[in-house]
Amino acid sequence: MRSRTLDARVGAEVLLKAENLQRVGAFKFRGAYNAVAALPAAERSRGVVSVSSGNHAQAVALAAALHGVPALVLMPLDAPDLKVAATVGYGARIVRFDRYAEDREALLAAAVAEHGMVAIHPYDDERVMAGQGTVALELLQDAGPCDALLVCVGGGGLIAGCATAAKALDPAIRVIGVEPEAGDDVRRSLAAGERVALPAVPETIADGQQLPVCGERTWPVIAARVDAVAVASDAEIVAAMRFLLERCKLVVEPSGACALAALLAGRVDLGGAERVGVTLTGGNVDAQRLAALIG
Amino acid sequence: MRSRTLDARVGAEVLLKAENLQRVGAFKFRGAYNAVAALPAAERSRGVVSVSSGNHAQAVALAAALHGVPALVLMPLDAPDLKVAATVGYGARIVRFDRYAEDREALLAAAVAEHGMVAIHPYDDERVMAGQGTVALELLQDAGPCDALLVCVGGGGLIAGCATAAKALDPAIRVIGVEPEAGDDVRRSLAAGERVALPAVPETIADGQQLPVCGERTWPVIAARVDAVAVASDAEIVAAMRFLLERCKLVVEPSGACALAALLAGRVDLGGAERVGVTLTGGNVDAQRLAALIG
Repeated sequence: MRSRTLDARVGAEVLLKAENLQRVGAFKFRGAYNAVAALPAAERSRGVVSVSSGNHAQAVALAAALHGVPALVLMPLDAPDLKVAATVGYGARIVRFDRYAEDREALLAAAVAEHGMVAIHPYDDERVMAGQGTVALELLQDAGPCDALLVCVGGGGLIAGCATAAKALDPAIRVIGVEPEAGDDVRRSLAAGERVALPAVPETIADGQQLPVCGERTWPVIAARVDAVAVASDAEIVAAMRFLLERCKLVVEPSGACALAALLAGRVDLGGAERVGVTLTGGNVDAQRLAALIG
Repeated sequence: MRSRTLDARVGAEVLLKAENLQRVGAFKFRGAYNAVAALPAAERSRGVVSVSSGNHAQAVALAAALHGVPALVLMPLDAPDLKVAATVGYGARIVRFDRYAEDREALLAAAVAEHGMVAIHPYDDERVMAGQGTVALELLQDAGPCDALLVCVGGGGLIAGCATAAKALDPAIRVIGVEPEAGDDVRRSLAAGERVALPAVPETIADGQQLPVCGERTWPVIAARVDAVAVASDAEIVAAMRFLLERCKLVVEPSGACALAALLAGRVDLGGAERVGVTLTGGNVDAQRLAALIG
Protein backbone atom coordinates (compact mmCIF):
# COMPACT_ATOMS: atom_id res chain seq x y z
CA MET A 1 0.00 0.00 0.00
CA ARG A 2 1.10 3.55 -0.65
CA SER A 3 0.43 6.96 0.87
CA ARG A 4 1.38 10.23 -0.81
CA THR A 5 1.52 11.92 2.60
CA LEU A 6 3.88 9.26 3.89
CA ASP A 7 6.23 9.61 0.90
CA ALA A 8 6.34 13.37 1.46
CA ARG A 9 7.03 12.98 5.19
CA VAL A 10 9.82 10.44 4.68
CA GLY A 11 11.33 11.89 1.51
CA ALA A 12 11.33 8.52 -0.23
CA GLU A 13 8.89 6.14 -1.85
CA VAL A 14 7.49 4.00 0.95
CA LEU A 15 5.99 0.60 0.12
CA LEU A 16 3.88 -0.78 2.96
CA LYS A 17 3.36 -4.54 3.27
CA ALA A 18 0.03 -4.72 5.09
CA GLU A 19 0.21 -8.00 6.98
CA ASN A 20 -2.58 -6.74 9.24
CA LEU A 21 -4.79 -7.82 6.33
CA GLN A 22 -3.27 -11.34 6.33
CA ARG A 23 -5.26 -14.33 7.66
CA VAL A 24 -5.41 -14.21 11.50
CA GLY A 25 -4.49 -10.55 11.14
CA ALA A 26 -0.71 -10.99 11.15
CA PHE A 27 2.26 -12.40 9.17
CA LYS A 28 2.49 -15.23 11.71
CA PHE A 29 0.09 -17.33 9.65
CA ARG A 30 2.76 -17.75 6.97
CA GLY A 31 5.32 -19.43 9.22
CA ALA A 32 2.87 -21.51 11.22
CA TYR A 33 1.12 -22.79 8.12
CA ASN A 34 4.42 -23.63 6.43
CA ALA A 35 5.65 -25.48 9.51
CA VAL A 36 2.47 -27.53 9.97
CA ALA A 37 2.26 -28.29 6.24
CA ALA A 38 5.90 -29.43 6.20
CA LEU A 39 5.41 -32.05 8.94
CA PRO A 40 5.24 -35.71 7.85
CA ALA A 41 1.57 -36.79 8.12
CA ALA A 42 2.24 -39.27 10.95
CA GLU A 43 3.97 -36.63 13.02
CA ARG A 44 1.35 -33.97 12.27
CA SER A 45 -1.51 -36.24 13.35
CA ARG A 46 -0.20 -36.10 16.95
CA GLY A 47 -1.15 -32.44 17.02
CA VAL A 48 0.92 -29.29 17.50
CA VAL A 49 1.79 -27.19 20.53
CA SER A 50 3.22 -23.70 20.84
CA VAL A 51 3.75 -20.73 23.13
CA SER A 52 2.76 -17.22 22.06
CA SER A 53 1.42 -13.88 23.27
CA GLY A 54 -1.17 -14.02 20.57
CA ASN A 55 -0.53 -13.81 16.85
CA HIS A 56 1.49 -17.02 16.54
CA ALA A 57 -1.11 -18.63 18.81
CA GLN A 58 -3.88 -17.81 16.36
CA ALA A 59 -1.69 -18.82 13.45
CA VAL A 60 -0.90 -22.27 14.89
CA ALA A 61 -4.54 -22.76 15.87
CA LEU A 62 -5.74 -21.98 12.34
CA ALA A 63 -2.96 -23.93 10.60
CA ALA A 64 -3.81 -26.97 12.76
CA ALA A 65 -7.53 -26.58 12.11
CA LEU A 66 -6.93 -26.38 8.34
CA HIS A 67 -4.96 -29.64 8.59
CA GLY A 68 -7.55 -31.28 10.87
CA VAL A 69 -5.14 -31.83 13.77
CA PRO A 70 -5.41 -30.68 17.41
CA ALA A 71 -3.52 -27.64 18.76
CA LEU A 72 -2.46 -26.62 22.27
CA VAL A 73 -1.20 -23.08 22.87
CA LEU A 74 0.47 -21.66 25.97
CA MET A 75 -0.48 -17.98 26.31
CA PRO A 76 0.75 -15.36 28.81
CA LEU A 77 -1.82 -14.14 31.34
CA ASP A 78 -1.54 -10.60 29.96
CA ALA A 79 -2.05 -11.55 26.30
CA PRO A 80 -4.67 -9.27 24.69
CA ASP A 81 -8.24 -10.58 25.03
CA LEU A 82 -8.93 -10.37 21.29
CA LYS A 83 -5.97 -12.66 20.56
CA VAL A 84 -6.96 -15.15 23.26
CA ALA A 85 -10.56 -15.23 22.02
CA ALA A 86 -9.50 -15.68 18.39
CA THR A 87 -7.16 -18.56 19.30
CA VAL A 88 -9.96 -20.33 21.13
CA GLY A 89 -12.25 -19.52 18.19
CA TYR A 90 -9.97 -21.43 15.81
CA GLY A 91 -10.42 -24.50 18.00
CA ALA A 92 -7.16 -24.61 19.98
CA ARG A 93 -6.95 -25.56 23.64
CA ILE A 94 -5.10 -22.88 25.61
CA VAL A 95 -3.18 -22.84 28.90
CA ARG A 96 -2.25 -19.50 30.52
CA PHE A 97 1.08 -18.65 32.20
CA ASP A 98 2.82 -15.67 33.86
CA ARG A 99 5.35 -14.29 31.37
CA TYR A 100 7.25 -12.35 34.03
CA ALA A 101 7.65 -15.32 36.42
CA GLU A 102 7.67 -18.50 34.31
CA ASP A 103 10.09 -19.69 31.62
CA ARG A 104 8.27 -20.15 28.31
CA GLU A 105 10.81 -22.56 26.82
CA ALA A 106 10.60 -24.88 29.83
CA LEU A 107 6.79 -24.80 29.71
CA LEU A 108 6.83 -25.67 26.02
CA ALA A 109 9.23 -28.58 26.55
CA ALA A 110 7.05 -29.89 29.38
CA ALA A 111 3.95 -29.73 27.17
CA VAL A 112 5.72 -31.64 24.39
CA ALA A 113 6.80 -34.32 26.85
CA GLU A 114 3.34 -34.59 28.44
CA HIS A 115 1.16 -34.63 25.31
CA GLY A 116 3.46 -36.06 22.63
CA MET A 117 2.58 -33.16 20.38
CA VAL A 118 4.98 -31.50 17.92
CA ALA A 119 6.28 -28.09 19.01
CA ILE A 120 5.92 -25.28 16.50
CA HIS A 121 8.20 -22.63 17.92
CA PRO A 122 7.04 -19.07 17.18
CA TYR A 123 10.35 -18.13 15.56
CA ASP A 124 13.24 -20.51 16.32
CA ASP A 125 12.36 -22.98 13.56
CA GLU A 126 13.68 -22.94 9.98
CA ARG A 127 10.25 -23.83 8.52
CA VAL A 128 8.72 -20.89 10.40
CA MET A 129 11.47 -18.51 9.25
CA ALA A 130 11.03 -19.69 5.65
CA GLY A 131 7.29 -19.02 5.82
CA GLN A 132 7.77 -15.53 7.26
CA GLY A 133 10.31 -14.77 4.52
CA THR A 134 7.50 -14.77 1.96
CA VAL A 135 6.57 -11.33 3.35
CA ALA A 136 9.72 -9.85 1.76
CA LEU A 137 9.42 -12.08 -1.28
CA GLU A 138 5.90 -10.83 -2.04
CA LEU A 139 6.69 -7.22 -1.23
CA LEU A 140 9.68 -7.12 -3.57
CA GLN A 141 7.90 -9.09 -6.29
CA ASP A 142 4.80 -6.86 -6.13
CA ALA A 143 6.48 -3.48 -5.58
CA GLY A 144 9.72 -3.99 -7.45
CA PRO A 145 13.26 -3.44 -6.16
CA CYS A 146 13.75 -1.49 -2.92
CA ASP A 147 16.94 0.10 -1.60
CA ALA A 148 16.05 -0.68 1.99
CA LEU A 149 13.65 -2.98 3.83
CA LEU A 150 12.46 -2.24 7.38
CA VAL A 151 11.37 -5.28 9.36
CA CYS A 152 9.87 -5.43 12.87
CA VAL A 153 11.96 -7.69 15.16
CA GLY A 154 10.74 -9.80 18.07
CA GLY A 155 12.29 -13.26 18.26
CA GLY A 156 13.78 -12.74 14.84
CA GLY A 157 11.80 -15.20 12.72
CA LEU A 158 10.37 -12.56 10.40
CA ILE A 159 13.62 -10.71 9.84
CA ALA A 160 15.65 -13.92 9.41
CA GLY A 161 13.26 -15.09 6.67
CA CYS A 162 12.90 -11.65 5.10
CA ALA A 163 16.64 -10.95 5.07
CA THR A 164 17.26 -14.34 3.45
CA ALA A 165 14.65 -13.75 0.75
CA ALA A 166 15.56 -10.10 0.15
CA LYS A 167 19.33 -10.63 -0.08
CA ALA A 168 18.82 -13.60 -2.39
CA LEU A 169 16.79 -11.39 -4.74
CA ASP A 170 19.13 -8.39 -4.40
CA PRO A 171 22.39 -8.63 -2.43
CA ALA A 172 22.63 -4.82 -2.36
CA ILE A 173 19.39 -4.25 -0.45
CA ARG A 174 19.82 -2.89 3.11
CA VAL A 175 17.82 -4.93 5.61
CA ILE A 176 17.13 -2.93 8.76
CA GLY A 177 15.47 -4.41 11.83
CA VAL A 178 13.33 -2.31 14.17
CA GLU A 179 12.82 -3.05 17.86
CA PRO A 180 10.93 -1.27 20.61
CA GLU A 181 13.40 0.97 22.46
CA ALA A 182 12.87 -0.94 25.73
CA GLY A 183 13.64 -4.26 24.06
CA ASP A 184 16.71 -3.60 21.89
CA ASP A 185 18.44 -6.95 22.43
CA VAL A 186 19.13 -7.50 18.72
CA ARG A 187 20.64 -4.02 18.34
CA ARG A 188 22.92 -4.83 21.30
CA SER A 189 23.66 -8.27 19.90
CA LEU A 190 24.76 -6.89 16.52
CA ALA A 191 26.95 -4.29 18.28
CA ALA A 192 28.50 -6.97 20.51
CA GLY A 193 28.89 -9.51 17.72
CA GLU A 194 27.15 -12.13 19.84
CA ARG A 195 23.64 -12.88 21.05
CA VAL A 196 22.90 -10.62 24.04
CA ALA A 197 20.00 -11.15 26.44
CA LEU A 198 18.37 -8.23 28.26
CA PRO A 199 18.19 -8.64 32.04
CA ALA A 200 14.38 -8.82 32.00
CA VAL A 201 11.36 -9.05 29.73
CA PRO A 202 11.03 -5.52 28.28
CA GLU A 203 8.00 -3.45 29.25
CA THR A 204 6.55 -1.97 26.08
CA ILE A 205 3.15 -1.59 24.43
CA ALA A 206 4.54 -3.70 21.57
CA ASP A 207 3.30 -6.99 23.03
CA GLY A 208 4.49 -9.02 20.03
CA GLN A 209 8.06 -7.89 20.64
CA GLN A 210 8.32 -8.40 24.40
CA LEU A 211 11.30 -10.76 24.29
CA PRO A 212 14.61 -10.33 26.16
CA VAL A 213 16.64 -12.21 23.55
CA CYS A 214 16.29 -13.42 19.97
CA GLY A 215 16.33 -17.08 18.98
CA GLU A 216 19.30 -19.42 18.93
CA ARG A 217 18.52 -20.33 15.34
CA THR A 218 17.43 -16.87 14.18
CA TRP A 219 20.57 -15.19 15.55
CA PRO A 220 23.14 -16.59 13.07
CA VAL A 221 20.88 -15.61 10.16
CA ILE A 222 20.43 -12.11 11.60
CA ALA A 223 24.17 -11.74 12.26
CA ALA A 224 24.96 -12.71 8.68
CA ARG A 225 22.24 -10.81 6.81
CA VAL A 226 20.86 -7.85 8.79
CA ASP A 227 22.65 -4.55 8.17
CA ALA A 228 21.42 -2.48 11.09
CA VAL A 229 18.79 -2.23 13.83
CA ALA A 230 16.83 0.92 14.68
CA VAL A 231 14.47 1.44 17.62
CA ALA A 232 11.17 3.21 18.30
CA SER A 233 9.77 4.41 21.62
CA ASP A 234 6.24 3.55 22.73
CA ALA A 235 5.19 7.16 22.04
CA GLU A 236 6.60 6.94 18.51
CA ILE A 237 4.73 3.66 17.99
CA VAL A 238 1.46 5.31 19.04
CA ALA A 239 2.15 8.22 16.65
CA ALA A 240 2.67 5.74 13.80
CA MET A 241 -0.54 3.88 14.70
CA ARG A 242 -2.40 7.21 14.60
CA PHE A 243 -0.86 8.06 11.22
CA LEU A 244 -1.87 4.67 9.80
CA LEU A 245 -5.42 5.07 11.13
CA GLU A 246 -5.95 8.61 9.88
CA ARG A 247 -4.05 8.58 6.60
CA CYS A 248 -4.08 4.93 5.46
CA LYS A 249 -7.34 3.87 7.21
CA LEU A 250 -5.53 0.82 8.57
CA VAL A 251 -5.63 -0.66 12.06
CA VAL A 252 -2.12 -1.78 12.98
CA GLU A 253 -1.20 -3.12 16.41
CA PRO A 254 1.74 -1.64 18.37
CA SER A 255 4.28 -4.31 17.35
CA GLY A 256 3.05 -4.02 13.78
CA ALA A 257 3.65 -0.27 13.62
CA CYS A 258 7.16 -0.41 15.12
CA ALA A 259 9.09 -0.26 11.83
CA LEU A 260 7.05 2.64 10.46
CA ALA A 261 7.35 4.38 13.84
CA ALA A 262 11.15 4.45 13.64
CA LEU A 263 10.98 5.66 10.04
CA LEU A 264 8.50 8.48 10.81
CA ALA A 265 10.50 9.51 13.88
CA GLY A 266 13.65 9.91 11.76
CA ARG A 267 15.45 7.17 13.67
CA VAL A 268 16.42 5.13 10.61
CA ASP A 269 19.55 5.94 8.63
CA LEU A 270 18.19 5.46 5.12
CA GLY A 271 21.60 6.06 3.54
CA GLY A 272 19.99 7.85 0.60
CA ALA A 273 17.49 5.08 -0.12
CA GLU A 274 14.87 6.13 -2.67
CA ARG A 275 12.50 3.19 -2.27
CA VAL A 276 11.87 1.73 1.17
CA GLY A 277 9.81 -1.37 1.94
CA VAL A 278 8.17 -1.36 5.39
CA THR A 279 6.50 -4.32 7.10
CA LEU A 280 3.24 -3.65 8.97
CA THR A 281 3.22 -6.96 10.75
CA GLY A 282 -0.20 -7.26 12.34
CA GLY A 283 -3.50 -5.61 13.26
CA ASN A 284 -4.76 -7.52 16.24
CA VAL A 285 -5.66 -4.86 18.78
CA ASP A 286 -9.15 -4.71 20.24
CA ALA A 287 -11.24 -1.56 19.93
CA GLN A 288 -11.03 -0.69 23.62
CA ARG A 289 -7.23 -0.95 23.77
CA LEU A 290 -6.94 0.90 20.47
CA ALA A 291 -9.11 3.72 21.84
CA ALA A 292 -7.01 3.89 25.02
CA LEU A 293 -3.78 4.08 23.02
CA ILE A 294 -4.79 6.67 20.43
CA GLY A 295 -7.39 8.76 22.28
CA MET B 1 -12.72 -7.08 0.61
CA ARG B 2 -14.02 -10.19 2.33
CA SER B 3 -14.31 -11.46 5.90
CA ARG B 4 -15.12 -15.05 6.80
CA THR B 5 -16.52 -13.89 10.14
CA LEU B 6 -18.78 -11.42 8.39
CA ASP B 7 -20.12 -14.04 5.97
CA ALA B 8 -20.89 -16.33 8.92
CA ARG B 9 -22.64 -13.54 10.86
CA VAL B 10 -24.78 -12.47 7.91
CA GLY B 11 -25.43 -15.90 6.39
CA ALA B 12 -24.45 -14.72 2.92
CA GLU B 13 -21.32 -13.86 0.96
CA VAL B 14 -20.60 -10.21 1.70
CA LEU B 15 -18.47 -8.20 -0.73
CA LEU B 16 -17.18 -4.97 0.81
CA LYS B 17 -16.30 -2.04 -1.46
CA ALA B 18 -13.70 -0.22 0.63
CA GLU B 19 -14.02 3.40 -0.48
CA ASN B 20 -12.25 4.44 2.71
CA LEU B 21 -9.13 3.45 0.74
CA GLN B 22 -10.11 5.75 -2.17
CA ARG B 23 -8.25 9.04 -2.76
CA VAL B 24 -9.31 11.66 -0.16
CA GLY B 25 -10.55 8.69 1.88
CA ALA B 26 -14.05 8.54 0.40
CA PHE B 27 -16.05 7.77 -2.75
CA LYS B 28 -16.68 11.51 -3.18
CA PHE B 29 -13.50 11.87 -5.23
CA ARG B 30 -15.14 9.95 -8.07
CA GLY B 31 -18.02 12.36 -8.58
CA ALA B 32 -16.05 15.55 -7.97
CA TYR B 33 -13.28 14.52 -10.33
CA ASN B 34 -15.76 13.51 -13.03
CA ALA B 35 -17.63 16.81 -12.69
CA VAL B 36 -14.50 18.98 -12.84
CA ALA B 37 -13.06 16.93 -15.72
CA ALA B 38 -16.33 17.25 -17.67
CA LEU B 39 -16.36 21.07 -17.57
CA PRO B 40 -15.36 22.91 -20.76
CA ALA B 41 -11.87 24.33 -20.20
CA ALA B 42 -13.02 27.97 -20.32
CA GLU B 43 -15.64 27.35 -17.66
CA ARG B 44 -13.30 25.30 -15.50
CA SER B 45 -10.64 27.99 -15.49
CA ARG B 46 -12.99 30.26 -13.45
CA GLY B 47 -12.61 27.80 -10.58
CA VAL B 48 -15.11 25.66 -8.71
CA VAL B 49 -17.13 26.17 -5.54
CA SER B 50 -19.05 23.74 -3.36
CA VAL B 51 -20.64 23.17 0.03
CA SER B 52 -19.84 20.09 2.08
CA SER B 53 -19.41 18.73 5.59
CA GLY B 54 -16.12 17.28 4.53
CA ASN B 55 -15.60 14.46 2.08
CA HIS B 56 -16.98 16.27 -0.96
CA ALA B 57 -15.03 19.33 0.18
CA GLN B 58 -11.76 17.40 0.02
CA ALA B 59 -12.79 15.79 -3.25
CA VAL B 60 -13.53 19.13 -4.95
CA ALA B 61 -10.34 20.62 -3.55
CA LEU B 62 -8.22 17.78 -4.92
CA ALA B 63 -10.06 17.58 -8.26
CA ALA B 64 -9.53 21.33 -8.72
CA ALA B 65 -5.86 21.08 -7.71
CA LEU B 66 -5.29 18.24 -10.20
CA HIS B 67 -6.81 20.47 -12.91
CA GLY B 68 -4.84 23.52 -11.79
CA VAL B 69 -7.92 25.65 -11.03
CA PRO B 70 -8.95 27.40 -7.78
CA ALA B 71 -11.54 25.95 -5.37
CA LEU B 72 -13.75 27.54 -2.71
CA VAL B 73 -15.58 25.29 -0.25
CA LEU B 74 -18.31 26.25 2.24
CA MET B 75 -17.99 23.99 5.30
CA PRO B 76 -20.26 23.71 8.37
CA LEU B 77 -18.76 24.96 11.64
CA ASP B 78 -19.07 21.45 13.13
CA ALA B 79 -17.34 19.65 10.25
CA PRO B 80 -14.68 17.25 11.60
CA ASP B 81 -11.25 18.88 12.01
CA LEU B 82 -9.50 16.19 9.94
CA LYS B 83 -11.76 16.94 6.96
CA VAL B 84 -11.30 20.70 7.27
CA ALA B 85 -7.52 20.36 7.53
CA ALA B 86 -7.35 18.02 4.53
CA THR B 87 -9.46 20.37 2.40
CA VAL B 88 -7.16 23.26 3.22
CA GLY B 89 -4.20 20.94 2.57
CA TYR B 90 -5.37 20.34 -1.00
CA GLY B 91 -5.21 24.09 -1.57
CA ALA B 92 -8.87 25.11 -1.35
CA ARG B 93 -10.09 28.33 0.29
CA ILE B 94 -12.76 27.56 2.87
CA VAL B 95 -15.60 29.58 4.44
CA ARG B 96 -17.41 28.20 7.51
CA PHE B 97 -21.19 28.34 8.18
CA ASP B 98 -23.71 27.16 10.79
CA ARG B 99 -25.52 24.14 9.36
CA TYR B 100 -28.38 24.38 11.85
CA ALA B 101 -29.11 28.09 11.19
CA GLU B 102 -28.07 28.84 7.63
CA ASP B 103 -29.37 27.50 4.29
CA ARG B 104 -26.58 25.76 2.40
CA GLU B 105 -28.19 26.08 -1.03
CA ALA B 106 -28.62 29.84 -0.62
CA LEU B 107 -25.01 30.19 0.53
CA LEU B 108 -23.79 28.24 -2.48
CA ALA B 109 -25.84 30.37 -4.89
CA ALA B 110 -24.48 33.54 -3.29
CA ALA B 111 -20.89 32.29 -3.65
CA VAL B 112 -21.44 31.48 -7.33
CA ALA B 113 -22.88 34.97 -7.94
CA GLU B 114 -20.09 36.70 -6.03
CA HIS B 115 -17.06 34.83 -7.42
CA GLY B 116 -18.21 33.70 -10.87
CA MET B 117 -17.06 30.18 -10.04
CA VAL B 118 -18.79 26.99 -11.22
CA ALA B 119 -20.80 25.18 -8.55
CA ILE B 120 -20.05 21.50 -8.09
CA HIS B 121 -22.99 20.32 -6.04
CA PRO B 122 -22.14 17.45 -3.68
CA TYR B 123 -24.89 15.23 -5.09
CA ASP B 124 -27.53 17.05 -7.16
CA ASP B 125 -25.53 16.98 -10.39
CA GLU B 126 -25.66 14.29 -13.09
CA ARG B 127 -21.88 14.35 -13.58
CA VAL B 128 -21.39 13.78 -9.86
CA MET B 129 -23.95 10.95 -9.80
CA ALA B 130 -22.27 9.33 -12.81
CA GLY B 131 -18.89 9.46 -11.10
CA GLN B 132 -20.24 7.94 -7.88
CA GLY B 133 -21.89 5.16 -9.91
CA THR B 134 -18.46 3.74 -10.70
CA VAL B 135 -18.46 2.40 -7.11
CA ALA B 136 -21.13 -0.14 -8.09
CA LEU B 137 -19.63 -0.65 -11.53
CA GLU B 138 -16.23 -1.62 -10.07
CA LEU B 139 -17.71 -3.70 -7.26
CA LEU B 140 -19.82 -5.79 -9.63
CA GLN B 141 -17.05 -6.08 -12.22
CA ASP B 142 -14.47 -7.13 -9.61
CA ALA B 143 -16.66 -9.33 -7.42
CA GLY B 144 -19.07 -10.72 -9.98
CA PRO B 145 -22.88 -10.66 -9.86
CA CYS B 146 -24.60 -9.85 -6.54
CA ASP B 147 -28.20 -10.45 -5.56
CA ALA B 148 -28.38 -7.28 -3.49
CA LEU B 149 -26.38 -4.07 -3.18
CA LEU B 150 -26.44 -1.96 0.00
CA VAL B 151 -25.62 1.70 -0.48
CA CYS B 152 -25.27 4.45 2.14
CA VAL B 153 -27.65 7.35 1.42
CA GLY B 154 -27.13 11.04 2.21
CA GLY B 155 -28.18 13.43 -0.55
CA GLY B 156 -28.60 10.47 -2.86
CA GLY B 157 -25.77 10.98 -5.33
CA LEU B 158 -24.06 7.70 -4.58
CA ILE B 159 -27.19 5.59 -4.64
CA ALA B 160 -28.53 7.28 -7.79
CA GLY B 161 -25.30 6.51 -9.64
CA CYS B 162 -24.92 3.03 -8.15
CA ALA B 163 -28.53 2.04 -8.83
CA THR B 164 -28.17 3.22 -12.43
CA ALA B 165 -24.96 1.26 -12.98
CA ALA B 166 -26.11 -1.85 -11.10
CA LYS B 167 -29.52 -2.13 -12.78
CA ALA B 168 -27.95 -1.57 -16.19
CA LEU B 169 -25.60 -4.50 -15.55
CA ASP B 170 -28.30 -6.68 -13.96
CA PRO B 171 -31.95 -5.54 -13.86
CA ALA B 172 -32.71 -8.24 -11.24
CA ILE B 173 -30.31 -6.89 -8.59
CA ARG B 174 -31.98 -5.43 -5.48
CA VAL B 175 -30.60 -1.98 -4.65
CA ILE B 176 -31.18 -1.10 -1.01
CA GLY B 177 -30.36 2.28 0.47
CA VAL B 178 -29.34 2.70 4.10
CA GLU B 179 -29.90 5.87 6.13
CA PRO B 180 -29.20 6.75 9.75
CA GLU B 181 -32.39 6.16 11.74
CA ALA B 182 -32.65 9.85 12.69
CA GLY B 183 -32.42 10.94 9.04
CA ASP B 184 -34.74 8.57 7.18
CA ASP B 185 -36.08 11.07 4.64
CA VAL B 186 -35.51 8.80 1.64
CA ARG B 187 -37.28 5.89 3.35
CA ARG B 188 -40.22 8.23 4.00
CA SER B 189 -40.05 9.58 0.48
CA LEU B 190 -40.23 6.11 -1.09
CA ALA B 191 -43.17 5.23 1.18
CA ALA B 192 -44.97 8.48 0.29
CA GLY B 193 -44.16 8.27 -3.42
CA GLU B 194 -42.82 11.82 -3.30
CA ARG B 195 -39.78 13.65 -1.98
CA VAL B 196 -40.30 14.22 1.77
CA ALA B 197 -38.23 16.64 3.85
CA LEU B 198 -37.63 16.06 7.56
CA PRO B 199 -38.58 19.02 9.77
CA ALA B 200 -34.95 19.61 10.81
CA VAL B 201 -31.38 18.56 10.12
CA PRO B 202 -31.08 15.11 11.72
CA GLU B 203 -28.80 14.72 14.73
CA THR B 204 -26.66 11.63 14.14
CA ILE B 205 -23.00 10.64 14.39
CA ALA B 206 -23.14 9.96 10.63
CA ASP B 207 -22.01 13.48 9.67
CA GLY B 208 -21.93 12.67 5.95
CA GLN B 209 -25.64 11.83 6.02
CA GLN B 210 -26.96 14.78 8.03
CA LEU B 211 -29.42 15.99 5.39
CA PRO B 212 -33.16 16.56 5.90
CA VAL B 213 -34.04 15.80 2.27
CA CYS B 214 -32.44 14.21 -0.79
CA GLY B 215 -31.69 16.12 -3.99
CA GLU B 216 -34.17 17.34 -6.59
CA ARG B 217 -32.20 15.57 -9.29
CA THR B 218 -31.29 12.46 -7.30
CA TRP B 219 -34.89 11.84 -6.20
CA PRO B 220 -36.37 10.76 -9.57
CA VAL B 221 -33.47 8.33 -10.08
CA ILE B 222 -33.94 6.92 -6.58
CA ALA B 223 -37.73 6.65 -7.04
CA ALA B 224 -37.24 4.72 -10.28
CA ARG B 225 -34.34 2.44 -9.33
CA VAL B 226 -34.05 1.91 -5.58
CA ASP B 227 -35.97 -1.09 -4.23
CA ALA B 228 -36.00 -0.35 -0.50
CA VAL B 229 -34.40 1.71 2.25
CA ALA B 230 -33.23 0.33 5.61
CA VAL B 231 -31.97 2.32 8.59
CA ALA B 232 -29.31 1.96 11.28
CA SER B 233 -29.15 3.60 14.71
CA ASP B 234 -26.06 5.43 15.92
CA ALA B 235 -25.33 2.53 18.30
CA GLU B 236 -25.55 0.06 15.42
CA ILE B 237 -23.20 2.25 13.38
CA VAL B 238 -20.65 2.22 16.22
CA ALA B 239 -20.95 -1.57 16.47
CA ALA B 240 -20.24 -1.87 12.74
CA MET B 241 -17.25 0.48 13.02
CA ARG B 242 -15.90 -1.69 15.84
CA PHE B 243 -16.42 -4.85 13.77
CA LEU B 244 -14.58 -3.31 10.81
CA LEU B 245 -11.70 -2.21 13.05
CA GLU B 246 -11.29 -5.52 14.86
CA ARG B 247 -12.05 -8.01 12.12
CA CYS B 248 -11.20 -6.23 8.86
CA LYS B 249 -8.51 -3.84 10.26
CA LEU B 250 -10.25 -0.98 8.46
CA VAL B 251 -11.04 2.51 9.71
CA VAL B 252 -14.48 3.48 8.44
CA GLU B 253 -16.23 6.72 9.46
CA PRO B 254 -19.79 6.64 10.86
CA SER B 255 -21.53 7.48 7.54
CA GLY B 256 -19.32 4.96 5.82
CA ALA B 257 -20.31 2.12 8.13
CA CYS B 258 -24.06 2.81 7.93
CA ALA B 259 -24.89 0.16 5.31
CA LEU B 260 -22.93 -2.57 7.07
CA ALA B 261 -24.47 -1.49 10.38
CA ALA B 262 -28.00 -2.15 9.13
CA LEU B 263 -26.89 -5.50 7.69
CA LEU B 264 -25.16 -6.64 10.91
CA ALA B 265 -28.15 -5.49 13.00
CA GLY B 266 -30.50 -7.66 10.95
CA ARG B 267 -32.42 -4.61 9.71
CA VAL B 268 -32.13 -5.43 6.01
CA ASP B 269 -34.58 -7.79 4.33
CA LEU B 270 -32.16 -9.72 2.13
CA GLY B 271 -34.95 -11.69 0.49
CA GLY B 272 -32.78 -14.80 0.31
CA ALA B 273 -29.83 -13.01 -1.32
CA GLU B 274 -26.72 -15.20 -1.42
CA ARG B 275 -24.22 -12.53 -2.49
CA VAL B 276 -24.49 -9.03 -1.07
CA GLY B 277 -22.39 -6.02 -2.08
CA VAL B 278 -21.91 -3.42 0.66
CA THR B 279 -20.45 0.07 0.23
CA LEU B 280 -18.05 1.32 2.90
CA THR B 281 -18.17 4.90 1.76
CA GLY B 282 -15.37 6.66 3.64
CA GLY B 283 -12.79 6.55 6.39
CA ASN B 284 -12.24 10.17 7.38
CA VAL B 285 -12.53 10.16 11.15
CA ASP B 286 -9.70 11.51 13.28
CA ALA B 287 -8.06 9.34 15.91
CA GLN B 288 -9.51 11.29 18.84
CA ARG B 289 -13.10 11.08 17.59
CA LEU B 290 -12.60 7.43 16.66
CA ALA B 291 -11.35 6.69 20.17
CA ALA B 292 -14.32 8.51 21.70
CA LEU B 293 -16.79 6.56 19.53
CA ILE B 294 -15.38 3.05 19.98
CA GLY B 295 -13.75 3.21 23.44
